[in-house]
Amino acid sequence: MEEEHHHHGYLNDKDRYLARMKRIEGQARGIHRMVEEDKYCIDILTQISAMKSALENVALGLLDEHMKTCVIDAAREGTEAGDVKIDEASKAIQRLVKS
Amino acid sequence: MEEEHHHHGYLNDKDRYLARMKRIEGQARGIHRMVEEDKYCIDILTQISAMKSALENVALGLLDEHMKTCVIDAAREGTEAGDVKIDEASKAIQRLVKS
Amino acid sequence: MEEEHHHHGYLNDKDRYLARMKRIEGQARGIHRMVEEDKYCIDILTQISAMKSALENVALGLLDEHMKTCVIDAAREGTEAGDVKIDEASKAIQRLVKS
Amino acid sequence: MEEEHHHHGYLNDKDRYLARMKRIEGQARGIHRMVEEDKYCIDILTQISAMKSALENVALGLLDEHMKTCVIDAAREGTEAGDVKIDEASKAIQRLVKS
Repeated sequence: MEEEHHHHGYLNDKDRYLARMKRIEGQARGIHRMVEEDKYCIDILTQISAMKSALENVALGLLDEHMKTCVIDAAREGTEAGDVKIDEASKAIQRLVKS
Repeated sequence: MEEEHHHHGYLNDKDRYLARMKRIEGQARGIHRMVEEDKYCIDILTQISAMKSALENVALGLLDEHMKTCVIDAAREGTEAGDVKIDEASKAIQRLVKS
Repeated sequence: MEEEHHHHGYLNDKDRYLARMKRIEGQARGIHRMVEEDKYCIDILTQISAMKSALENVALGLLDEHMKTCVIDAAREGTEAGDVKIDEASKAIQRLVKS
Repeated sequence: MEEEHHHHGYLNDKDRYLARMKRIEGQARGIHRMVEEDKYCIDILTQISAMKSALENVALGLLDEHMKTCVIDAAREGTEAGDVKIDEASKAIQRLVKS
């Protein structure tokens, strides 16, 4: 049942994340075009902030899902396995907050 | 044994976090004094960035510890208990990244 | 007239910024107390995010005012003087975004 | 001469920014592929943080250039024109810091 829960969530989210990354790729292309067409700097910055926010949301979603599957699974295997996974997740959160 | 692990880590970290928050309070006081003494704006901004960074580090540390204790404990109780704690942690991470 | 504009804005804002830094110092003290009283980790993180946000708002306000006075004044002195001030401001913005 | 300074910087930077946005678009495509190929979540998060950082650097560069041209030019036209441009830039900085 745990396996099923894991895979069910996985397949659902995969399509959603692929669509979100496609959209972000489109945002990058749109900003490229704005620079090419000499658009106003402030308008480009507005698009960059929106793209940054969309990218952070993907990261936060992936992180949440990762914790609900890999970290939880590891925690059940044992204290050490759980700590290793959480150290890894904590470093990823730090990179996200500090980047 | 779990209790012991939990409390051992807790007491150690508590002193460290209290010291770090004292230092951050001192940074706030220092910035207040800089404004009062008409210090150069860019120098004040440098101190604010340092203080923001120190504050984020406290948050990242508390979050790591929280996941290693509360989240892990909940995960062992059951899937639902684990998911509830991770939802809560994910929202805290989001507030930190987006604030 | 320029002088007057400069000083008028300055005195007004000084009191406001002093009050805001006092409030932030109080937030630091509140978080210290929460750690001391073993408050729930997620609640402490919520307060830290609020404090981080308040601190960023002070930085954004100071930066805005700095650009409206020092940077503008330097820009009128000459291209080089303006560029020097903007380099300085850009580095401060970078520290704020990246910290 | 002002015109020349403005345009010289502009053309140089335009090519550089177009190349940087192409690279960021490639990063988005790379992350899309990682999701598609079921790559490890933490590795995807590492790439997202790198992409976010590259995107912020483009924003900081555009902002610096914008201030050195549009804002400076406006400041020379008059206090009001300068203030309008700085309000606009401050709001863009706020969106970048807060997003």
